[in-house]
Amino acid sequence: MSHQKEEKARAALKALEEVQDGMVVGLGTGSTAAVFIEALAAKVNDQNWQITGVATSKRSAELAQSLGLTVKDIDEVSAIDVTIDGADEVDPELNGIKGGGAALLYEKVVALRSKKNVWVVDQSKAHDLLGTFPLPVEVIEFGAQQVYLTLAELNLRPKFRMKNESERAKTDSGHNIIDVRIDQVDDKKALAKTLKAITGVVEHGLFLDICDKVIIGTDPIQTLVKKTT
Amino acid sequence: MSHQKEEKARAALKALEEVQDGMVVGLGTGSTAAVFIEALAAKVNDQNWQITGVATSKRSAELAQSLGLTVKDIDEVSAIDVTIDGADEVDPELNGIKGGGAALLYEKVVALRSKKNVWVVDQSKAHDLLGTFPLPVEVIEFGAQQVYLTLAELNLRPKFRMKNESERAKTDSGHNIIDVRIDQVDDKKALAKTLKAITGVVEHGLFLDICDKVIIGTDPIQTLVKKTT
Repeated sequence: MSHQKEEKARAALKALEEVQDGMVVGLGTGSTAAVFIEALAAKVNDQNWQITGVATSKRSAELAQSLGLTVKDIDEVSAIDVTIDGADEVDPELNGIKGGGAALLYEKVVALRSKKNVWVVDQSKAHDLLGTFPLPVEVIEFGAQQVYLTLAELNLRPKFRMKNESERAKTDSGHNIIDVRIDQVDDKKALAKTLKAITGVVEHGLFLDICDKVIIGTDPIQTLVKKTT
Repeated sequence: MSHQKEEKARAALKALEEVQDGMVVGLGTGSTAAVFIEALAAKVNDQNWQITGVATSKRSAELAQSLGLTVKDIDEVSAIDVTIDGADEVDPELNGIKGGGAALLYEKVVALRSKKNVWVVDQSKAHDLLGTFPLPVEVIEFGAQQVYLTLAELNLRPKFRMKNESERAKTDSGHNIIDVRIDQVDDKKALAKTLKAITGVVEHGLFLDICDKVIIGTDPIQTLVKKTT
């Protein structure tokens, strides 16, 4: 196992401690979230727990169901107790960038309805400042080029995410993704507002003031917890 | 012809004067916009004009093409000279509510890229204050119920638009529509910002500071023009 893979697995296993029998659990998307889903399924089967999963993508729903977990739609549950998800980048204030796997929209919908959000990452995702990783912006297909132009005017160096050389990638909702660079942007909160306000933009991957705990899978494990003031 | 139909036709015909040979013309959606599209097609055929249409819905694109008009996607044109569209409600400041026909998202994308926006309406659409007509909010399907709850918390009396008794209506983008009541809301600009900022909301039908001219098809015709200060 590579160093990074090992850290992801360690963080995902540690996150199992956040779950108790009877909970509704939000299931993230991506390689680290997938390790967590596998570990959760093993635990649920072993302990005969009653757990309801709420998936943040079609592929996480399929993975969870294939392992015997009960999966419900977000609109079929009254609340989500805890969501375990990965992140592409996280800073010391527990703000982050998500959406490398194109699941940012459903991930944000689920996160905002979760009582607790825990991110599981390897050390390479922790940065003092956000912006090393490109920020995904989910846009409707109709007039996507118009949004691209607006993002270019904002000096965000936009780039359509491609499925292959000629075809744009599509999210589970049928939208496109435009990746932008925000390393030159100081005020991330203002940027988040600006992006969401653009007609044609559905959502973006800046997750600010959403995460409650970050588990970094180093040996020993590091944990960042949100400061409540 | 009913009184209302007569007014719609009169306004739509008057709007032809906004179009000149060689223009790229945004084509609205709805009964009044349909009359305009028919009149435009007749004029183009009669005068042998070169006009490119940019449609705001699948049905307007189909109508225009069936009448022989050239229709291009918004991302295939560099600019739109003028867009002629209907409105569900318009106030004396030329702000309005659109989206009764569920085309608000594409209508707003096209309107924001148009050099000039002209609305064609009958007298019943003109109100001193917006809010008699329900305001459509376009939302993603995933977690739509969560957005519904947020809108209810905002006291906006939300109601899913239905296709039939059991099925929710879908827009051209595959989204749902939640109609809300805004007659009790004084600050429409603040409301517009609040709505667009909600995760799960794609767009809403408040068109503020977008329209340049309103043609009301009374006899004689009334015209409202945006005050430039």
